[in-house]
Amino acid sequence: MSSFHLKSLEEVLEKYITNDEQLKEIKRLLYGRSDDNKLELPEEAKNLGSKHGFDIQGYRFTAKSECIRLPRIVRIGAIQNSIVLPTSEPVIKQREAIWQKVQVMIKAAALANVNIICLQEAWSRSSLVLRSLSKMYFKCLLSFLLTAMPFAFCTREKFPWCEFSEGAAEGPTTKMLQELAKAYNMVIISPILERDTNHSDTIWNTAVIISNRGQYLGKHRKNHIPRVGDFNESTYYMEGNTGHPVFETVFGHIGVNICYGRHHPQNWMMFGINGAEIVFNPSATVGSLSEPLWPIEARNAAIANSYFTVAINRVGSEEFPNKFTSGDGNEPHTTFGPFYGSSYITAPDSSRTPSLSRDRDGLLIAEIDLNLCRQVKDFWGFPMTQRLDLYANSLQHATKLDFKPQIVRE
Amino acid sequence: MSSFHLKSLEEVLEKYITNDEQLKEIKRLLYGRSDDNKLELPEEAKNLGSKHGFDIQGYRFTAKSECIRLPRIVRIGAIQNSIVLPTSEPVIKQREAIWQKVQVMIKAAALANVNIICLQEAWSRSSLVLRSLSKMYFKCLLSFLLTAMPFAFCTREKFPWCEFSEGAAEGPTTKMLQELAKAYNMVIISPILERDTNHSDTIWNTAVIISNRGQYLGKHRKNHIPRVGDFNESTYYMEGNTGHPVFETVFGHIGVNICYGRHHPQNWMMFGINGAEIVFNPSATVGSLSEPLWPIEARNAAIANSYFTVAINRVGSEEFPNKFTSGDGNEPHTTFGPFYGSSYITAPDSSRTPSLSRDRDGLLIAEIDLNLCRQVKDFWGFPMTQRLDLYANSLQHATKLDFKPQIVRE
Repeated sequence: MSSFHLKSLEEVLEKYITNDEQLKEIKRLLYGRSDDNKLELPEEAKNLGSKHGFDIQGYRFTAKSECIRLPRIVRIGAIQNSIVLPTSEPVIKQREAIWQKVQVMIKAAALANVNIICLQEAWSRSSLVLRSLSKMYFKCLLSFLLTAMPFAFCTREKFPWCEFSEGAAEGPTTKMLQELAKAYNMVIISPILERDTNHSDTIWNTAVIISNRGQYLGKHRKNHIPRVGDFNESTYYMEGNTGHPVFETVFGHIGVNICYGRHHPQNWMMFGINGAEIVFNPSATVGSLSEPLWPIEARNAAIANSYFTVAINRVGSEEFPNKFTSGDGNEPHTTFGPFYGSSYITAPDSSRTPSLSRDRDGLLIAEIDLNLCRQVKDFWGFPMTQRLDLYANSLQHATKLDFKPQIVRE
Repeated sequence: MSSFHLKSLEEVLEKYITNDEQLKEIKRLLYGRSDDNKLELPEEAKNLGSKHGFDIQGYRFTAKSECIRLPRIVRIGAIQNSIVLPTSEPVIKQREAIWQKVQVMIKAAALANVNIICLQEAWSRSSLVLRSLSKMYFKCLLSFLLTAMPFAFCTREKFPWCEFSEGAAEGPTTKMLQELAKAYNMVIISPILERDTNHSDTIWNTAVIISNRGQYLGKHRKNHIPRVGDFNESTYYMEGNTGHPVFETVFGHIGVNICYGRHHPQNWMMFGINGAEIVFNPSATVGSLSEPLWPIEARNAAIANSYFTVAINRVGSEEFPNKFTSGDGNEPHTTFGPFYGSSYITAPDSSRTPSLSRDRDGLLIAEIDLNLCRQVKDFWGFPMTQRLDLYANSLQHATKLDFKPQIVRE
């Protein structure tokens, strides 16, 4: 990786490509549209961003006007974040600052009339650490909270990390967000570490969906679990058992493909088959591992399934109290990251927003017309030409122990 | 679309981004590696390109050295092309020029030690037109050969286009290429319009695979057929019935995903499940329709399936004798295009070559180590975490007439 720090690809393109026509053509090739089609956002929302140090970007995706269906215009949002306070502050203040920041970002989204917001994968942990940990962990927490809300699976330690988990329907994070959802008339997707006390205290990587009336609407558990590099998540929880639920909200049919599931096109596909119009992909992934894959996968899913996708990644590096190894032969170390942010939204016609920055908190908003999904289906015909019966049969064969691949030899 | 003509994205980036470190970081983000890793090609091959007016570009993808397996280094190639002679020349000379050009390009590939070459979708037609057409078509052919080898499905006319078809195993194109394959010790993938006289004279969009010993190894028929814009292909042939064959050649296990099949991740997936190490995607697609999708789909397939992909598109515009409409409400017209070239190769680790140009003939070569496929599988674990049983069952349900999507309501 280069030592040069690049804030975002777009920033460099805008800086260097001074010929407007060429820049437009490059944008068409890279983002599927030559015009950013920026969304004007309310001053109060922007002021909150300036005051609290997070970027706010808004874009618009339009659809054709139809005779029978009215436009179904909604605003969707993605939040990428880390902490604000230095570790020299008391931990309790740090915790409050983290909670306050996400609440402020959600408030900014509300001011910008966002209807559905999705937080990043496992966003809510640090507060729970602080509640559940005894004093003996206090000192090491001081260092790990340096960069906040750790994606602790790199450590392969069960304690204290397993204590982060909470109930999906009845946990404190859900309860807190239910209040906000109701107050702001906003659907909130809250990815947490779930504890299922009803099934032998098992832990899951779960997204909780809260309706705009503040009701617990349901949950989805991460379907595909990584075993790669620092992402030793299968040490903590197993492959999700909730299928591919699509949640019918007043603002559209939504699904959640959690993190590593974005590498599996068949996972995206089932959300489409179940009728999703928007699929959120809350993630936690680091530069050296996945950055060149990032702009490809969620965008390909939007294309292949004729729905909107929202790819969300956290920012910053994370420091842990004990050394760990990364399965790459390198020295034991305590830092995990950097997570490269770069959250972005793609429309079913393949056009996409620029990315949020690689290193700053940000709120990304898109105003979309859900009618575009069906219009793109009618235009491209991907669902019609999918041949599901062929693949249902092929996969049935492929899963058999005595499966013989279709190989042609000379 | 901008009126500005951009030869390739890479050309503009190289021109404007003068800071080396920034250019490297941009390349890492866009192509998955900061270094082009160019392959030095023999002078004779390059001279052929200069003399005959086609670009040659070569790149290298390496793999880790293993203890038990030796490196399996092969060179793969892609050809994108149009005709050379103006239509003022006699048609017979034009035909000869087209044949000669592709033969010269294959020869250049042979000089560069290419082991497997793939031609563009339906590359071989014009010669057949000339043989099969009577004099009454001669005049209109003069105009249509202006840009050579038409992708004639935009016309929805059955005559004379259906006469282009030929036998897969015994057709003249296959026979001609068998000689070259044997002479150059090269596997050749030849996408043609196939006539199946054994099954009621049906027509198929087919790729013929010829072994390095000049043997007809087999064929694959296009699995997914478009019905979009000018691509009225379902007027001519149906969805392929050959499954997802993987051809075991001495230079690796190869599959062919023809054109529109690249929009369907499940199609790519089955080639992977059957053991493909390289999947070629011979295509014919035009700028206004698909250009922003082009760099996404074949690359996503390489990532998701841990194999190499080779995306090939033709260049130029095509002129037809009779007016046709494009299903978009616009005036009837006679021109189809431009096809935007931009052929490129992606490795299983997501790194890719720059594209061939958007408007010139080109030969793209990559030296690859096939061992990279399994190394990436071991690293990322995508096949292991695929959960095929889940999807086999889900798709079985989804194909039922009384299928109930998994929808959660408040």
